[in-house]
Amino acid sequence: MMADKDSNPAQQSAPEAPEPAVPAPPAMQDTLTELTDLNWERTVEKSSRPVAVMFYSATCAFCHQMEPYFRNYAREYKETILFARLDILTNPWAAERYGVRSTPTFKFFCDGKPVQEMVGAVYPALLKKMVEEVLVHGKECAKNSTAIDYEITGYG
Amino acid sequence: MMADKDSNPAQQSAPEAPEPAVPAPPAMQDTLTELTDLNWERTVEKSSRPVAVMFYSATCAFCHQMEPYFRNYAREYKETILFARLDILTNPWAAERYGVRSTPTFKFFCDGKPVQEMVGAVYPALLKKMVEEVLVHGKECAKNSTAIDYEITGYG
Repeated sequence: MMADKDSNPAQQSAPEAPEPAVPAPPAMQDTLTELTDLNWERTVEKSSRPVAVMFYSATCAFCHQMEPYFRNYAREYKETILFARLDILTNPWAAERYGVRSTPTFKFFCDGKPVQEMVGAVYPALLKKMVEEVLVHGKECAKNSTAIDYEITGYG
Repeated sequence: MMADKDSNPAQQSAPEAPEPAVPAPPAMQDTLTELTDLNWERTVEKSSRPVAVMFYSATCAFCHQMEPYFRNYAREYKETILFARLDILTNPWAAERYGVRSTPTFKFFCDGKPVQEMVGAVYPALLKKMVEEVLVHGKECAKNSTAIDYEITGYG
Protein backbone atom coordinates (compact mmCIF):
# COMPACT_ATOMS: atom_id res chain seq x y z
CA MET A 1 0.00 0.00 0.00
CA MET A 2 2.99 2.32 0.47
CA ALA A 3 4.11 4.53 -2.43
CA ASP A 4 6.97 3.12 -4.44
CA LYS A 5 8.87 6.37 -4.28
CA ASP A 6 9.66 5.45 -0.68
CA SER A 7 11.58 2.36 -1.73
CA ASN A 8 15.37 2.27 -1.82
CA PRO A 9 16.46 4.40 -4.82
CA ALA A 10 19.85 2.68 -5.02
CA GLN A 11 18.12 -0.61 -5.97
CA GLN A 12 20.91 -2.65 -4.40
CA SER A 13 20.37 -6.32 -4.05
CA ALA A 14 20.15 -7.19 -0.35
CA PRO A 15 21.28 -10.77 0.32
CA GLU A 16 20.27 -10.65 3.99
CA ALA A 17 17.46 -8.82 5.70
CA PRO A 18 18.91 -5.90 7.68
CA GLU A 19 18.71 -6.27 11.46
CA PRO A 20 16.60 -3.49 12.95
CA ALA A 21 18.60 -0.95 14.93
CA VAL A 22 15.43 0.29 16.59
CA PRO A 23 12.09 -1.36 17.40
CA ALA A 24 9.78 -1.83 14.44
CA PRO A 25 7.80 1.29 13.48
CA PRO A 26 4.10 1.49 14.42
CA ALA A 27 3.03 0.52 10.89
CA MET A 28 4.53 -2.95 11.45
CA GLN A 29 2.90 -3.57 14.84
CA ASP A 30 0.17 -5.66 13.25
CA THR A 31 2.60 -8.48 12.47
CA LEU A 32 2.35 -9.52 16.13
CA THR A 33 -0.99 -10.75 17.44
CA GLU A 34 -1.69 -9.60 20.99
CA LEU A 35 -2.78 -12.57 23.09
CA THR A 36 -4.85 -12.52 26.26
CA ASP A 37 -6.07 -15.21 28.62
CA LEU A 38 -9.43 -14.84 26.87
CA ASN A 39 -8.35 -15.27 23.24
CA TRP A 40 -5.58 -17.79 24.03
CA GLU A 41 -7.55 -20.98 23.43
CA ARG A 42 -9.03 -19.81 20.12
CA THR A 43 -5.82 -18.23 18.82
CA VAL A 44 -3.21 -20.72 19.99
CA GLU A 45 -4.71 -24.06 21.02
CA LYS A 46 -7.18 -24.21 18.12
CA SER A 47 -4.90 -22.74 15.48
CA SER A 48 -4.30 -24.78 12.34
CA ARG A 49 -1.05 -22.90 11.73
CA PRO A 50 2.02 -23.17 13.96
CA VAL A 51 2.10 -20.36 16.54
CA ALA A 52 5.17 -18.65 18.01
CA VAL A 53 4.42 -16.97 21.34
CA MET A 54 6.65 -14.53 23.17
CA PHE A 55 5.73 -14.31 26.86
CA TYR A 56 6.87 -10.87 28.01
CA SER A 57 6.34 -8.12 30.51
CA ALA A 58 6.66 -4.39 30.02
CA THR A 59 9.34 -4.09 32.69
CA CYS A 60 11.58 -6.86 31.35
CA ALA A 61 14.64 -5.33 29.64
CA PHE A 62 15.59 -8.62 27.96
CA CYS A 63 12.15 -8.64 26.33
CA HIS A 64 12.69 -5.20 24.82
CA GLN A 65 16.05 -6.41 23.58
CA MET A 66 14.54 -9.42 21.77
CA GLU A 67 11.30 -7.93 20.46
CA PRO A 68 12.70 -6.28 17.30
CA TYR A 69 14.13 -9.64 16.18
CA PHE A 70 10.90 -11.43 17.01
CA ARG A 71 8.96 -8.86 14.95
CA ASN A 72 11.41 -9.31 12.11
CA TYR A 73 10.81 -13.07 12.05
CA ALA A 74 7.07 -12.40 12.29
CA ARG A 75 7.28 -10.50 9.01
CA GLU A 76 9.58 -13.02 7.40
CA TYR A 77 7.45 -16.06 8.29
CA LYS A 78 3.99 -14.46 8.28
CA GLU A 79 2.72 -16.79 5.55
CA THR A 80 3.38 -19.96 7.54
CA ILE A 81 3.56 -19.13 11.28
CA LEU A 82 1.38 -16.93 13.46
CA PHE A 83 3.58 -14.77 15.69
CA ALA A 84 2.01 -13.51 18.89
CA ARG A 85 2.92 -12.12 22.29
CA LEU A 86 1.35 -12.31 25.72
CA ASP A 87 1.84 -9.91 28.63
CA ILE A 88 2.32 -12.24 31.60
CA LEU A 89 1.40 -9.60 34.18
CA THR A 90 -2.07 -8.95 32.82
CA ASN A 91 -2.60 -12.56 31.60
CA PRO A 92 -1.25 -14.90 34.24
CA TRP A 93 -3.46 -17.88 33.36
CA ALA A 94 -1.74 -18.86 30.11
CA ALA A 95 1.73 -18.22 31.51
CA GLU A 96 1.01 -20.38 34.55
CA ARG A 97 -0.68 -23.11 32.50
CA TYR A 98 2.43 -23.49 30.37
CA GLY A 99 4.89 -23.21 33.25
CA VAL A 100 6.51 -19.99 32.09
CA ARG A 101 8.96 -19.04 34.86
CA SER A 102 10.97 -16.24 33.20
CA THR A 103 10.64 -13.66 30.46
CA PRO A 104 11.14 -13.59 27.60
CA THR A 105 10.01 -17.16 26.96
CA PHE A 106 9.53 -18.12 23.31
CA LYS A 107 7.16 -21.06 22.95
CA PHE A 108 6.18 -22.75 19.70
CA PHE A 109 2.88 -24.58 19.21
CA CYS A 110 1.86 -27.04 16.50
CA ASP A 111 -1.69 -28.37 16.31
CA GLY A 112 -2.28 -26.46 19.52
CA LYS A 113 0.44 -28.35 21.42
CA PRO A 114 3.69 -26.87 22.67
CA VAL A 115 6.61 -28.44 20.79
CA GLN A 116 9.63 -26.25 21.49
CA GLU A 117 10.72 -23.53 23.87
CA MET A 118 13.61 -21.16 24.36
CA VAL A 119 14.10 -18.78 27.26
CA GLY A 120 15.98 -15.51 27.62
CA ALA A 121 17.73 -12.95 25.46
CA VAL A 122 19.27 -15.58 23.23
CA TYR A 123 21.30 -15.08 20.09
CA PRO A 124 18.69 -14.14 17.47
CA ALA A 125 20.20 -16.74 15.15
CA LEU A 126 19.33 -19.48 17.67
CA LEU A 127 15.75 -18.30 17.83
CA LYS A 128 15.52 -18.23 14.06
CA LYS A 129 16.94 -21.75 13.88
CA MET A 130 14.16 -22.88 16.21
CA VAL A 131 11.55 -21.24 13.97
CA GLU A 132 12.94 -23.19 11.04
CA GLU A 133 12.94 -26.45 13.02
CA VAL A 134 9.33 -25.97 14.01
CA LEU A 135 8.40 -25.45 10.36
CA VAL A 136 10.12 -28.69 9.38
CA HIS A 137 9.47 -30.93 12.41
CA GLY A 138 6.70 -29.24 14.41
CA LYS A 139 3.72 -31.20 13.12
CA GLU A 140 5.55 -34.44 13.65
CA CYS A 141 6.59 -33.54 17.20
CA ALA A 142 3.00 -32.71 18.09
CA LYS A 143 1.85 -36.02 16.63
CA ASN A 144 4.62 -38.10 18.20
CA SER A 145 3.79 -37.20 21.75
CA THR A 146 1.16 -38.32 24.24
CA ALA A 147 -1.11 -35.65 25.70
CA ILE A 148 -1.28 -35.75 29.47
CA ASP A 149 -4.74 -36.03 30.93
CA TYR A 150 -4.32 -34.15 34.19
CA GLU A 151 -7.61 -35.50 35.43
CA ILE A 152 -6.07 -38.98 35.52
CA THR A 153 -3.25 -37.77 37.71
CA GLY A 154 -5.77 -36.21 40.04
CA TYR A 155 -4.01 -32.91 39.60
CA GLY A 156 -6.30 -31.12 37.17
CA MET B 1 32.81 -55.52 28.81
CA MET B 2 31.36 -57.65 26.02
CA ALA B 3 33.56 -60.21 24.27
CA ASP B 4 35.11 -58.97 21.07
CA LYS B 5 33.96 -62.00 19.17
CA ASP B 6 30.50 -60.44 19.20
CA SER B 7 31.63 -57.44 17.21
CA ASN B 8 31.05 -57.11 13.49
CA PRO B 9 33.53 -59.48 11.77
CA ALA B 10 33.42 -57.44 8.56
CA GLN B 11 35.29 -54.63 10.37
CA GLN B 12 33.62 -51.99 8.25
CA SER B 13 34.33 -48.41 9.16
CA ALA B 14 31.24 -46.91 10.78
CA PRO B 15 31.02 -43.16 10.11
CA GLU B 16 28.08 -42.79 12.50
CA ALA B 17 27.64 -44.18 15.98
CA PRO B 18 25.36 -47.22 15.86
CA GLU B 19 21.81 -46.51 17.05
CA PRO B 20 20.77 -48.76 19.91
CA ALA B 21 18.23 -51.34 18.80
CA VAL B 22 17.16 -52.11 22.36
CA PRO B 23 17.02 -50.08 25.58
CA ALA B 24 20.25 -49.73 27.49
CA PRO B 25 21.15 -52.73 29.66
CA PRO B 26 20.49 -52.59 33.42
CA ALA B 27 24.15 -51.87 34.17
CA MET B 28 23.74 -48.48 32.52
CA GLN B 29 20.60 -47.46 34.42
CA ASP B 30 22.60 -45.35 36.84
CA THR B 31 23.35 -42.73 34.17
CA LEU B 32 19.80 -41.43 34.60
CA THR B 33 18.82 -39.89 37.91
CA GLU B 34 15.25 -40.74 38.94
CA LEU B 35 13.45 -37.55 39.93
CA THR B 36 10.44 -37.24 42.21
CA ASP B 37 8.36 -34.31 43.40
CA LEU B 38 10.30 -34.58 46.65
CA ASN B 39 13.86 -34.48 45.31
CA TRP B 40 13.05 -32.09 42.42
CA GLU B 41 14.02 -28.83 44.12
CA ARG B 42 17.32 -30.14 45.45
CA THR B 43 18.28 -32.02 42.28
CA VAL B 44 17.09 -29.62 39.57
CA GLU B 45 16.41 -26.12 40.88
CA LYS B 46 19.47 -26.03 43.16
CA SER B 47 21.85 -27.84 40.81
CA SER B 48 25.06 -26.05 39.86
CA ARG B 49 25.31 -28.21 36.72
CA PRO B 50 22.89 -27.98 33.79
CA VAL B 51 20.14 -30.60 34.09
CA ALA B 52 18.34 -32.40 31.25
CA VAL B 53 14.97 -33.78 32.34
CA MET B 54 12.83 -36.25 30.41
CA PHE B 55 9.20 -36.13 31.58
CA TYR B 56 7.76 -39.53 30.79
CA SER B 57 5.12 -42.06 31.68
CA ALA B 58 5.34 -45.84 31.60
CA THR B 59 2.47 -46.12 29.12
CA CYS B 60 3.83 -43.62 26.60
CA ALA B 61 5.21 -45.45 23.56
CA PHE B 62 7.04 -42.37 22.26
CA CYS B 63 8.90 -42.23 25.57
CA HIS B 64 10.12 -45.80 25.19
CA GLN B 65 11.20 -44.92 21.68
CA MET B 66 13.30 -41.96 22.84
CA GLU B 67 14.74 -43.31 26.08
CA PRO B 68 17.67 -45.27 24.60
CA TYR B 69 18.89 -42.11 22.87
CA PHE B 70 18.44 -40.05 26.00
CA ARG B 71 20.44 -42.63 27.98
CA ASN B 72 23.12 -42.55 25.31
CA TYR B 73 23.49 -38.79 25.64
CA ALA B 74 23.46 -39.18 29.42
CA ARG B 75 26.58 -41.32 29.13
CA GLU B 76 28.20 -39.07 26.54
CA TYR B 77 27.67 -35.84 28.52
CA LYS B 78 27.82 -37.21 32.07
CA GLU B 79 30.79 -35.00 33.00
CA THR B 80 28.96 -31.75 32.24
CA ILE B 81 25.19 -32.31 32.38
CA LEU B 82 23.01 -34.19 34.85
CA PHE B 83 20.50 -36.33 32.96
CA ALA B 84 17.34 -37.24 34.82
CA ARG B 85 13.81 -38.44 34.24
CA LEU B 86 10.51 -37.91 36.03
CA ASP B 87 7.42 -40.12 35.90
CA ILE B 88 4.58 -37.63 35.46
CA LEU B 89 1.91 -40.01 36.73
CA THR B 90 3.47 -40.50 40.14
CA ASN B 91 4.96 -36.98 40.32
CA PRO B 92 2.37 -34.53 38.99
CA TRP B 93 3.60 -31.49 40.91
CA ALA B 94 6.79 -30.87 38.93
CA ALA B 95 5.11 -31.63 35.61
CA GLU B 96 2.30 -29.21 36.37
CA ARG B 97 4.64 -26.53 37.71
CA TYR B 98 6.57 -26.51 34.45
CA GLY B 99 3.50 -26.75 32.22
CA VAL B 100 4.32 -30.15 30.75
CA ARG B 101 1.33 -31.06 28.55
CA SER B 102 2.64 -34.11 26.64
CA THR B 103 5.22 -36.85 27.00
CA PRO B 104 8.05 -37.15 26.31
CA THR B 105 9.00 -33.56 27.13
CA PHE B 106 12.71 -32.84 27.31
CA LYS B 107 13.45 -29.78 29.40
CA PHE B 108 16.87 -28.27 30.07
CA PHE B 109 17.71 -26.26 33.18
CA CYS B 110 20.63 -23.93 33.84
CA ASP B 111 21.19 -22.39 37.27
CA GLY B 112 17.89 -24.01 38.20
CA LYS B 113 15.94 -22.18 35.47
CA PRO B 114 14.35 -23.80 32.43
CA VAL B 115 16.14 -22.56 29.30
CA GLN B 116 15.08 -24.88 26.49
CA GLU B 117 12.45 -27.50 25.77
CA MET B 118 11.60 -30.01 23.09
CA VAL B 119 8.51 -32.23 22.96
CA GLY B 120 7.79 -35.57 21.34
CA ALA B 121 9.66 -38.39 19.66
CA VAL B 122 11.95 -36.03 17.79
CA TYR B 123 14.88 -36.90 15.58
CA PRO B 124 17.60 -37.85 18.08
CA ALA B 125 20.00 -35.53 16.24
CA LEU B 126 17.73 -32.56 17.07
CA LEU B 127 17.74 -33.49 20.73
CA LYS B 128 21.51 -33.80 20.72
CA LYS B 129 21.83 -30.41 19.04
CA MET B 130 19.79 -28.93 21.86
CA VAL B 131 22.07 -30.56 24.44
CA GLU B 132 25.03 -28.91 22.71
CA GLU B 133 23.28 -25.52 22.61
CA VAL B 134 22.52 -25.70 26.32
CA LEU B 135 26.18 -26.41 27.02
CA VAL B 136 27.25 -23.36 25.03
CA HIS B 137 24.44 -20.87 25.71
CA GLY B 138 22.53 -22.24 28.71
CA LYS B 139 24.16 -20.17 31.46
CA GLU B 140 23.70 -17.04 29.44
CA CYS B 141 20.03 -17.74 28.72
CA ALA B 142 19.37 -18.26 32.41
CA LYS B 143 21.15 -14.99 33.20
CA ASN B 144 19.52 -13.00 30.40
CA SER B 145 15.97 -13.59 31.53
CA THR B 146 13.75 -12.14 34.23
CA ALA B 147 12.29 -14.54 36.76
CA ILE B 148 8.54 -14.16 37.20
CA ASP B 149 7.36 -13.57 40.72
CA TYR B 150 3.95 -15.24 40.63
CA GLU B 151 3.05 -13.60 43.92
CA ILE B 152 3.09 -10.22 42.17
CA THR B 153 0.61 -11.46 39.58
CA GLY B 154 -1.61 -12.72 42.36
CA TYR B 155 -1.53 -16.15 40.79
CA GLY B 156 0.99 -17.94 43.00
